[in-house]
Amino acid sequence: MSPKLPTRQNVQSVLNHLNSSEGVIYLKGQVMTERDDTDVEQAFRQESNFFYVTGVAEPGFHVIIDIASQHIQLIAPVVNADDVMWMGMPDSISALIEKYDVDTVIYEDQLDQRLQSSSVVYTLPTTKVTGNYNLANLEQVAALKVAFGEARAVKKDWEIEIIRQANKISSDAHVKLMESVEVGSNEAQLHALFLYESARRGAFFQAYYPIMGVGMNAATLHYNKNNAPLTNPSDLVLVDAGAELDCYASDITRVFPVGGKFTPEAAAIYNLVLDMQKACLAACKAGSAWEYIHQIAVEVACQGLLDLGILQGEKQEVLDSDVVAAFYPHGIGHMLGLDVHDVAGYPTGVERIDRPGYRYLRMRRNLAPGNVVTVEPGVYFCDFLIAPVLEDEKTSKYVNQEALNKYKSTGGVRIEDNIVITEDGYINLTTAPKEIEEIEALMTASKA
Amino acid sequence: MSPKLPTRQNVQSVLNHLNSSEGVIYLKGQVMTERDDTDVEQAFRQESNFFYVTGVAEPGFHVIIDIASQHIQLIAPVVNADDVMWMGMPDSISALIEKYDVDTVIYEDQLDQRLQSSSVVYTLPTTKVTGNYNLANLEQVAALKVAFGEARAVKKDWEIEIIRQANKISSDAHVKLMESVEVGSNEAQLHALFLYESARRGAFFQAYYPIMGVGMNAATLHYNKNNAPLTNPSDLVLVDAGAELDCYASDITRVFPVGGKFTPEAAAIYNLVLDMQKACLAACKAGSAWEYIHQIAVEVACQGLLDLGILQGEKQEVLDSDVVAAFYPHGIGHMLGLDVHDVAGYPTGVERIDRPGYRYLRMRRNLAPGNVVTVEPGVYFCDFLIAPVLEDEKTSKYVNQEALNKYKSTGGVRIEDNIVITEDGYINLTTAPKEIEEIEALMTASKA
Repeated sequence: MSPKLPTRQNVQSVLNHLNSSEGVIYLKGQVMTERDDTDVEQAFRQESNFFYVTGVAEPGFHVIIDIASQHIQLIAPVVNADDVMWMGMPDSISALIEKYDVDTVIYEDQLDQRLQSSSVVYTLPTTKVTGNYNLANLEQVAALKVAFGEARAVKKDWEIEIIRQANKISSDAHVKLMESVEVGSNEAQLHALFLYESARRGAFFQAYYPIMGVGMNAATLHYNKNNAPLTNPSDLVLVDAGAELDCYASDITRVFPVGGKFTPEAAAIYNLVLDMQKACLAACKAGSAWEYIHQIAVEVACQGLLDLGILQGEKQEVLDSDVVAAFYPHGIGHMLGLDVHDVAGYPTGVERIDRPGYRYLRMRRNLAPGNVVTVEPGVYFCDFLIAPVLEDEKTSKYVNQEALNKYKSTGGVRIEDNIVITEDGYINLTTAPKEIEEIEALMTASKA
Repeated sequence: MSPKLPTRQNVQSVLNHLNSSEGVIYLKGQVMTERDDTDVEQAFRQESNFFYVTGVAEPGFHVIIDIASQHIQLIAPVVNADDVMWMGMPDSISALIEKYDVDTVIYEDQLDQRLQSSSVVYTLPTTKVTGNYNLANLEQVAALKVAFGEARAVKKDWEIEIIRQANKISSDAHVKLMESVEVGSNEAQLHALFLYESARRGAFFQAYYPIMGVGMNAATLHYNKNNAPLTNPSDLVLVDAGAELDCYASDITRVFPVGGKFTPEAAAIYNLVLDMQKACLAACKAGSAWEYIHQIAVEVACQGLLDLGILQGEKQEVLDSDVVAAFYPHGIGHMLGLDVHDVAGYPTGVERIDRPGYRYLRMRRNLAPGNVVTVEPGVYFCDFLIAPVLEDEKTSKYVNQEALNKYKSTGGVRIEDNIVITEDGYINLTTAPKEIEEIEALMTASKA
């Protein structure tokens, strides 16, 4: 836990987006939960919106924000003597006020009375409210959810700084994996090492379940078995893993050969994906539409696959056929923040595009300064996705099977960085190397 | 995941304890859950009873066991095309039958019809049932819960073997911590290292949240901050941590000095706790009542604290005053299995003993061959627990404050092993060293 976070600024942002001048916002933080019908406690992670306005990463708290006065009141759990014996002394009220920069603190047994006296009680769907209160109507609840989303979509400098630190930790962990990998190892070893390299730098949570996929495993987008042996030095390993720091996510993908040296085929696919990413990054700046960034990736992928002979035909015709989506099936990226797929990807009223590849876009909005997003193009050789293209006579003509077979064992390549949008461009927060020469040099040096 | 587990034997055990000859047992396994209102997937861990009778550690399955025929039917989730793109191809029906040694497999869309045709549907409270079925009554549900508890209380040889392996992994990890600890390190570093040493040996889950407490932190029984620096070579570190393997828990506590050398005071308290454990272990065998084992620990603690001069007075009078519970407040141990605090600690009708120290016993039953239990005495110097004894004139006379102050900085010592009960005694599954000479030798060697 870092020193006190200026989450009071976040309260201000939410209120700025909420068109209301009376009532209170009431949120219940996460409680400690137990696994099924047992007393095995589950790892505690604060609900993201609650963390956003309080910075509290302990279980059992509530918060009430008075909309007119912006008064922040924390509600602390009542701690009994038994709890003290097992869990230690709780913070005093004055310690909590100091620790979290709130205006007042009351205990949970006063909560009901406090809420009963409020003219309107706004909540989010994650807060279940059961008392006899003047609850906000559905429209007001929806407005609060949008207000949180829009506030969280534009990161403050200190939030960006935390995401930068999370990126540094994760980038360093990715480098450690490149340095340590060897024939005879296993995806599980890489997984364990990533957790360790994160935790020993202070990041005990991962932002999501890490993906460690060797060879064809990388073609399953959210592969999570992470238990295959690394037997072939020319196989690529795809590592999609990012640590969480102070509840803020990082989300990085790197790909490297088990033996430290890319084959010509692997290098060709890798550099194609890197070209896709570079072209997309070059277009990232305030005002750019996210589906346009995705389209750039699709077009570069199409040209690259044509150049390699895997696809064939007239470029526009190939693009119109959507066969590229069989190789690049997912969206170009998503918002990143307190959640790895952060809120506010689709503003109210914006729908998904019903077209292969575009369908999975996790975001459709014009970029704004302070947005933090992932840029993560990929090319995969997944039988399940390619087979329908080959079986359909309308699309099979665009694929050269001989060339396909030549590159197929590459499995899958994705390259993913985290960036902050600025007025004129972007700042890349991800420091893990991604040029082939850098990766090979680093892997060679570690074996020396 | 190990090769196929003989969980069919577990089905047999449950049915042996369930006095019924008609109907089915229906259990729903855990599903993949997401964190709050996000699409961040939480770590998947199978519900323990479901794992007990199926060995399935994948999300979204159900099982139906026909009580009369003992026919085991697995119900697999329906996987759509989108899932395949993200998660890969699911196992075929024949692959599932082979993998889990069940009789038949159907898909989830056939479940409702299957349950509707059953004369009685037994479930556990963890399975929420909402269809129009002939549900078992409350008494029958209670009987099924007892049947699972009693079956799980006596471990089969292969279960003991897995717990032994989990213990080996955890014991090796404990040794690594002893070898690595140094002044300038931090509880968090030890925590990270324990996770890594477990995961790289194949145990990606911990059986419970690890406790890493230096100095006075060890006096908070379930301390979980794990973030204090290790500044003083003479401070003790208490590490209570155990990896989980194939859903089976280990639960080990070891204590060692930051600098590798016990002070005379620390050694005195440590050896007192070790004496408590040895006396308890010597009494562990089939037929012994668990509260009697606890009583042995209390009596050895009392004698030891008298010998050190921390307590004073006539021994039986001191015992009757319950002041020992201020130093040894928790129970001597608990069942261990698929849950760290495993089921069946209190048979039907057995109540807790309302007496300090005894109150927290997690188990009251006569030991039986095949029970796996922890034996974990401790002595702590926790102000919160000792202050009331000093303030009460009826008990303050039993404490010598000068001696107390001399030993207080020891913080807390607990020594915890996992054993299997046999007809004549026990087998200790925990291999981490616990004699002071062994620990000091090991820590000296690692610094050399």
